[in-house]
Amino acid sequence: MRWHFILRTMGILLSLLGLSMTLPLLVGFIYHEQAVRIFLQSSGITILAGLILIFFTKRLDFDDYINQKEGMATVALAWCAISIFGALPFYLSPEFSLFSNAVFESVSGFTTTGSSVMTNIEMASKSLLFWRSLIQWLGGMGIIVLSLAVLPFLGVGGIQLYKAEVPSPEPDKLTPRLSDSAKILWMVYLFFTLLEIGFLYAGGMPLYESICHAFTTLPTGGFSPKNASIAHYNSAYFDTVITVFMLLAGINFSLHYQLLRGKPLAFWKDTECRFFLGFTLIATLLVTWDIYGSVYTSIQDAFRFASFQVVSIITTTGFASADYEKFSGLSHVLIFICMFIGASAGSTGGGIKCSRIIICLKYCYRELFKILHPRSISQIKMNNAIISDELLRSIMGFLVLYFGLFIVSSVLLASMGVDMLTALSAVASCIGNIGPGFGTVGPTENFSHLPILGKWLLSWCMLMGRLEIYTFIILFVPEFWKK
Amino acid sequence: MRWHFILRTMGILLSLLGLSMTLPLLVGFIYHEQAVRIFLQSSGITILAGLILIFFTKRLDFDDYINQKEGMATVALAWCAISIFGALPFYLSPEFSLFSNAVFESVSGFTTTGSSVMTNIEMASKSLLFWRSLIQWLGGMGIIVLSLAVLPFLGVGGIQLYKAEVPSPEPDKLTPRLSDSAKILWMVYLFFTLLEIGFLYAGGMPLYESICHAFTTLPTGGFSPKNASIAHYNSAYFDTVITVFMLLAGINFSLHYQLLRGKPLAFWKDTECRFFLGFTLIATLLVTWDIYGSVYTSIQDAFRFASFQVVSIITTTGFASADYEKFSGLSHVLIFICMFIGASAGSTGGGIKCSRIIICLKYCYRELFKILHPRSISQIKMNNAIISDELLRSIMGFLVLYFGLFIVSSVLLASMGVDMLTALSAVASCIGNIGPGFGTVGPTENFSHLPILGKWLLSWCMLMGRLEIYTFIILFVPEFWKK
Repeated sequence: MRWHFILRTMGILLSLLGLSMTLPLLVGFIYHEQAVRIFLQSSGITILAGLILIFFTKRLDFDDYINQKEGMATVALAWCAISIFGALPFYLSPEFSLFSNAVFESVSGFTTTGSSVMTNIEMASKSLLFWRSLIQWLGGMGIIVLSLAVLPFLGVGGIQLYKAEVPSPEPDKLTPRLSDSAKILWMVYLFFTLLEIGFLYAGGMPLYESICHAFTTLPTGGFSPKNASIAHYNSAYFDTVITVFMLLAGINFSLHYQLLRGKPLAFWKDTECRFFLGFTLIATLLVTWDIYGSVYTSIQDAFRFASFQVVSIITTTGFASADYEKFSGLSHVLIFICMFIGASAGSTGGGIKCSRIIICLKYCYRELFKILHPRSISQIKMNNAIISDELLRSIMGFLVLYFGLFIVSSVLLASMGVDMLTALSAVASCIGNIGPGFGTVGPTENFSHLPILGKWLLSWCMLMGRLEIYTFIILFVPEFWKK
Repeated sequence: MRWHFILRTMGILLSLLGLSMTLPLLVGFIYHEQAVRIFLQSSGITILAGLILIFFTKRLDFDDYINQKEGMATVALAWCAISIFGALPFYLSPEFSLFSNAVFESVSGFTTTGSSVMTNIEMASKSLLFWRSLIQWLGGMGIIVLSLAVLPFLGVGGIQLYKAEVPSPEPDKLTPRLSDSAKILWMVYLFFTLLEIGFLYAGGMPLYESICHAFTTLPTGGFSPKNASIAHYNSAYFDTVITVFMLLAGINFSLHYQLLRGKPLAFWKDTECRFFLGFTLIATLLVTWDIYGSVYTSIQDAFRFASFQVVSIITTTGFASADYEKFSGLSHVLIFICMFIGASAGSTGGGIKCSRIIICLKYCYRELFKILHPRSISQIKMNNAIISDELLRSIMGFLVLYFGLFIVSSVLLASMGVDMLTALSAVASCIGNIGPGFGTVGPTENFSHLPILGKWLLSWCMLMGRLEIYTFIILFVPEFWKK
């Protein structure tokens, strides 16, 4: 393990993080807020920490071969470090008295989860709320690189899928060099963000709020500067715009790149995208059927609120335009299931991810087929590419780890005195990087009342979920640290 | 598909079922009950149906090679036929006005689930309640043969485990011929049943009730002739006796045979048994910790009720000596998890089964290990035997099917207007062949208020769970019926 490499990367990232704190500083200046001081302090501390790390480590030679262990340790530790330094502005603000709360909010931001411990969001300064949105946007950028460039290289949990199977922008693959691919995808990300800001602003949302919401839609984050989330506006136009952009954020970004380069059938040709959109549509229609008549009197309203809520949860964004806890059993069960399914691989969304679900279903069908034809050899394909046994094993292992983590964390959270529904849904929501849950952490509530230890547990769950479990859990296998 | 074989087997089983109806007939005579008429009619119809099937089909030559498809179709269809004819006494009784209710109760009996639609059990005739217990006992006999002799031969869902890995009575394997193995295990089953009757009777429980309870403990069924289940007696002695026998029923029956033949370490040497007992102990201690002070003031009481409830759920029996819905979050989550884990393979219990969970955990660990040592070849072992890739695949497929069935059924049940907690737990309880759930199907409630369609759905879930899913679901794969 070459610690120099890991620490220097962390140093660079922390310096960049410190620099990014000048943006909320700017917001503070514009609105003449006291919070300016907070961001000056935070930025200073963070940049200093970054520079110290850079100063005391050897210069990086990027042509060096970076091995898998170092890659994993870097990703996991960098995400932790960024979350902790990113928590500084929260910790220094009057709204946050506890360090654990500040870290929870920061982890929830950088992992683009969107669970909050803030009880009265609108009381906070504009610059702090801007920071809250910005860290989700930055987290989203991190995830795009992570899921399309870093994790495939690390060979984690079937995420190498994209390397081989997903049709990519340049005739056959994304430009191979990591930095180039990242740039291409960030352009797409930035383009959609600007587009959404435009649409929201055009609809009459103040510019500041448009930026904040766009900054948390594209990374499927879900923080809102409003207490009532999107329900605050009660506008069919905003609901529709945000629903569309949440959907876009839940689709593999390399498909967007294809589409933008003039391949109109890119979405349709991709198995995962078809599954994702199809499943979302079916769930939306079922929820519409469920709430039409009982909660909403017009079919348009029922469809509008059903589609927003379903898309918000399955893309793991977590915005709310209505309180789904007031819907009935069917909607609850569907939304709970959406929490596990999640968005597409290669998107900014979390959860198990559609590609894994599809492969899992094909795996099952093959098993049934094998019982009937024991000697047959059948291979599982996706987008016409064969899924290797290696990959299959990795995906099944991921699923077991996912549910294992869900079970263990739920038991731990419940042991702190949290009721079952809240415990199960809070954990599912945090591992899936969604945001709201059921019970006392529903879409109109927040996570502030949970015990401190529970918040640390959930922060850990968010990180685990975001880093596809393997990348993070592996640090706790003693074998990892052996030479 | 040789239908003659399938139908004749069903005919023989139905005739035997009809004969077994003479036992509640006897109980009816003893207690001078009206219900005698019901059992005369039911017995007559069932035997007649059986004889017709036998009469119109060719004689069986048991030396014929029975292929896998025929085996599966026989098991699945026979279990359905028996459940339907077994429902006759219920349907003819004044307590059951709906055929769907009668079938639900009967399926719940033969699958040893123990979910009931009877709202006032103690109002029913003694002969009917005896029948209700007897069908669980008969179901248990069926499961023993199924899980230790039939399914391994059919190669279903990793159940072939026992063939190779579980140390068996005769030095290395159970006497190979199906009927001989069955006889040995039935002797064990009968022995424990008589032993439990003895213990309960010695403790002052009326003979009739002792028999009924023993008849539903050993098959991990859970029907009780009392409205309040075992809580009716509020006796530490009965609680302890039943807890012990539930535990015994949750252990692989071939281990019992070994133990009875003088191998005192049989339990300890078996990985699954260690896991099962260890997990049960840990869950019991956690629940004890959870309810001590809050629900029970003495530590003895807390342990007594915690152990009973945990053992009842993890062995998938479903007796209740307390209402676990009154416990707090931790106990709820643990009990919910126990619903999925289930008892040992080769026992009469249901659920996913400990051996599958163990292999799953080992699989995960191997995946983590593989990330660190990509070129290593490591095999998963259990009881010192290597688990083949074939078996592993089959087990992972089973898990996906199990959760898939759970999800689809929960959505369907919720779509009938059932709330989420009830829907999720009723389905988990029925697939796991447990009995009670949470919400409106908790341990002090019953399933009678569910919509009729929901009862059919749950009956189907009970059958699916009992027949390890594969055996039943395969009938719905069109491929199965092709030549």
